Amino acid sequence: MAAEIINPSTTLETGTRSGTGTEADTAGQQEGDHTGNTGNTGTTALTGGTAHPATNPTGNPAAGAGGDAVRGPALDGFPVDPVFALHRGGKMEVAATVPVRDADDLSLAYTPGVAEVCTAIAEQPELVHDYTWTSNLVAVVTDGTAVLGLGDIGPRASLPVMEGKAILFKQFGGVDAVPVALDCTDVDEIVETVVRLAPSFGGVNLEDISAPRCFEIEKRLKERLDIPVFHDDQHGTAVVTLAALRNACALTGRSLGDLRAVISGAGAAGVAIARILVEAGIGDVAVTDRKGVVHGSREDLNPVKRDLAAYTNTAGLAGSLESALAGADVFIGVSGGTVPEQAVAAMAPGSFVFAMANPTPEVHPDVARKYAAVVATGRSDFPNQINNVLAFPGIFAGALQVRASAITEGMKLAAAGALAAVVAGELSADKVIPSPFDPRVAPAVTAAVAAAARAEGVARR
Amino acid sequence: MAAEIINPSTTLETGTRSGTGTEADTAGQQEGDHTGNTGNTGTTALTGGTAHPATNPTGNPAAGAGGDAVRGPALDGFPVDPVFALHRGGKMEVAATVPVRDADDLSLAYTPGVAEVCTAIAEQPELVHDYTWTSNLVAVVTDGTAVLGLGDIGPRASLPVMEGKAILFKQFGGVDAVPVALDCTDVDEIVETVVRLAPSFGGVNLEDISAPRCFEIEKRLKERLDIPVFHDDQHGTAVVTLAALRNACALTGRSLGDLRAVISGAGAAGVAIARILVEAGIGDVAVTDRKGVVHGSREDLNPVKRDLAAYTNTAGLAGSLESALAGADVFIGVSGGTVPEQAVAAMAPGSFVFAMANPTPEVHPDVARKYAAVVATGRSDFPNQINNVLAFPGIFAGALQVRASAITEGMKLAAAGALAAVVAGELSADKVIPSPFDPRVAPAVTAAVAAAARAEGVARR
Repeated sequence: MAAEIINPSTTLETGTRSGTGTEADTAGQQEGDHTGNTGNTGTTALTGGTAHPATNPTGNPAAGAGGDAVRGPALDGFPVDPVFALHRGGKMEVAATVPVRDADDLSLAYTPGVAEVCTAIAEQPELVHDYTWTSNLVAVVTDGTAVLGLGDIGPRASLPVMEGKAILFKQFGGVDAVPVALDCTDVDEIVETVVRLAPSFGGVNLEDISAPRCFEIEKRLKERLDIPVFHDDQHGTAVVTLAALRNACALTGRSLGDLRAVISGAGAAGVAIARILVEAGIGDVAVTDRKGVVHGSREDLNPVKRDLAAYTNTAGLAGSLESALAGADVFIGVSGGTVPEQAVAAMAPGSFVFAMANPTPEVHPDVARKYAAVVATGRSDFPNQINNVLAFPGIFAGALQVRASAITEGMKLAAAGALAAVVAGELSADKVIPSPFDPRVAPAVTAAVAAAARAEGVARR
Repeated sequence: MAAEIINPSTTLETGTRSGTGTEADTAGQQEGDHTGNTGNTGTTALTGGTAHPATNPTGNPAAGAGGDAVRGPALDGFPVDPVFALHRGGKMEVAATVPVRDADDLSLAYTPGVAEVCTAIAEQPELVHDYTWTSNLVAVVTDGTAVLGLGDIGPRASLPVMEGKAILFKQFGGVDAVPVALDCTDVDEIVETVVRLAPSFGGVNLEDISAPRCFEIEKRLKERLDIPVFHDDQHGTAVVTLAALRNACALTGRSLGDLRAVISGAGAAGVAIARILVEAGIGDVAVTDRKGVVHGSREDLNPVKRDLAAYTNTAGLAGSLESALAGADVFIGVSGGTVPEQAVAAMAPGSFVFAMANPTPEVHPDVARKYAAVVATGRSDFPNQINNVLAFPGIFAGALQVRASAITEGMKLAAAGALAAVVAGELSADKVIPSPFDPRVAPAVTAAVAAAARAEGVARR
């Protein structure tokens, strides 16, 4: 009676691998504030696409294997391929962790036994953390307005991404997560809704909410709630970027304080990266949007960019991205635009180029490598993939482990430090950041974040 | 890093079984409208309590077995027993149903592949049912105002019950369910919140929301949403009660139309039972609250009871519960009050007594059997347990199977009929309703509800 799940083992081997070019044509098409979708859209084109040999050239699975997955008129007009077969019925489920086989079991897990636990929590509210799944549960909250590079596709269409996020939480961090896709986009309504939901969750991960609303929503939820609130598109990307930059420095014998960075993109990711770089002690960082460098004399800045102008760009740059890049040490692309080769060539010697737009980096890594000492992208098929999955599972696992009341700046910096340290002894130009599947990552980040929460006084155990 | 789960197999065998008498001292202590907690609090005192021998008389688990579950100051003042050990870390988790082992897996389940599915849903919204877990997912929504017999203990303290409900959904119906405990009690706020959440779920099960707000909330959500909305405390209890009553009639060669019933309790369960009995063709039914029989001449009726007065009590009874019972054929107790033996004795010969309050039936079954032809309770240690778990898993499984846009009266009646039919060939005074663990129940209810949804035109596939 449950929705059917096609066994992936019978379908993954059929059909050609789906393409990578069309679906995430990135934030350049979106509204003024780019929502850097880097990292979040981590694993992209498979190298050569040969991991699973295509059994027929049309992309249709062989009859029989995935046949049942594609019945019915609802699928008209959409390709029949392994992605759709895999997604049939969704990608996740709920499971009991206690037995429910007989009346004895029920008398413990349900009535009458459960009433003892309810009574205990009613009398000592903090016991909710001990005796419910909320202590390990994160709401993956979206309004569907900035999904991958697809933009405002609405809450329902966002769900496959939110389910994907949820299973990454589980797989990489051991954290339970549930998609909460909201049918409202008003800031007040989103904030109120999440506040009302808060008893059901131990943490809130905001996801794919467009800028600049995402900043206000995060800020207000952090003020209202005493559980971790984290906008991964901002801070996950920022943490991984900082980790890679730290290791690039270590590899080349430099320090953050000596570097001048330029960020292309003043959306969620760009703003958060600028902030964490400043906190980490970067020499200077300038952020550019479509109209060029963000600086305090511009009249067209929204409050977030005005704030940004106040603590970035101490050199007082103005003008284009290209002009800002002249002599710069670091380029960080989270915009989806393009950077011409001559602009990269005009950067300082030994530069770091993090061209993180997906699927098309702002500058192709092969070009960037001609000039830069370290090159990173958002793609899995090039070295140094900046992938949020390196951060968010461990950050939440660590925060939940100590029942942190918030995720502080110190916890994010600690996460970046721990992430960088995982490969500190193995550094090369092609390895300034661990692989997303490096099993050392999540435990290291978890431990560092938990320790930082204690040090910063937000841990509750 | 995940919250620890104590393995129940190592803890269930230690310590005495928890008591049954103190925690659910039922609705008699609650506000005017009793919230019949019957059925919902299904399995109660174990017969003899000997299933698991106590290893020590204090109820404390032996050191070692459950020792780690009880560390820390948070537990001060609460008994250390198997119930608490079992609940440590909660009772449920999320699991991926697709592999997430390597970059190839991620390229299908997450980026870039997932963008194809998002795009498809954005273009054909109904595909959300095919390609997300929402097609099999129910929100178990509460505000914590009428939890078991504990009353208004708040959303956090309600969570152990909601988790229990969720795992019953899964175990008995194969339906995924997630607790949604809301930090608001205003009708407008609850309705708006659930409407905003609706994209994330395939159905809404309202739970333990106090009367009369529960009626208004259900009504408005049914109007606003095109997915199944069901208040189990009302309709689950009503369906199972009707099923038992049908079989009691079959056993004794009577028909519903010949019966006059009296319901004690005009809360969620009482109102819903009255309604379904009228729909099913009961001869007459009178409902009593604390002030006696509900009838149209009373000045103290809220809108729900006024409505009730309009379609019940065609005999025009007034006065006390006891006076109404004189000569009645059926007693249905969902109030938590008590009925004196002489009132039962004064019922018509061959009566049916369903004394469903938990843990203390309105009249003890041993007393009722002296006069009644069929006796039912809400308890697992007496025959004929009226337990909601016989209904709600199959009702939602059937509704979700055909993507019903609502749960109609016809679907509830079909559920009751199917439930009754499961034991139609095995009827006895001690078996007018199946055991909660009868494996025939959920498939039968599911099929009947799905068929009824099609017949009533609310099925969408």
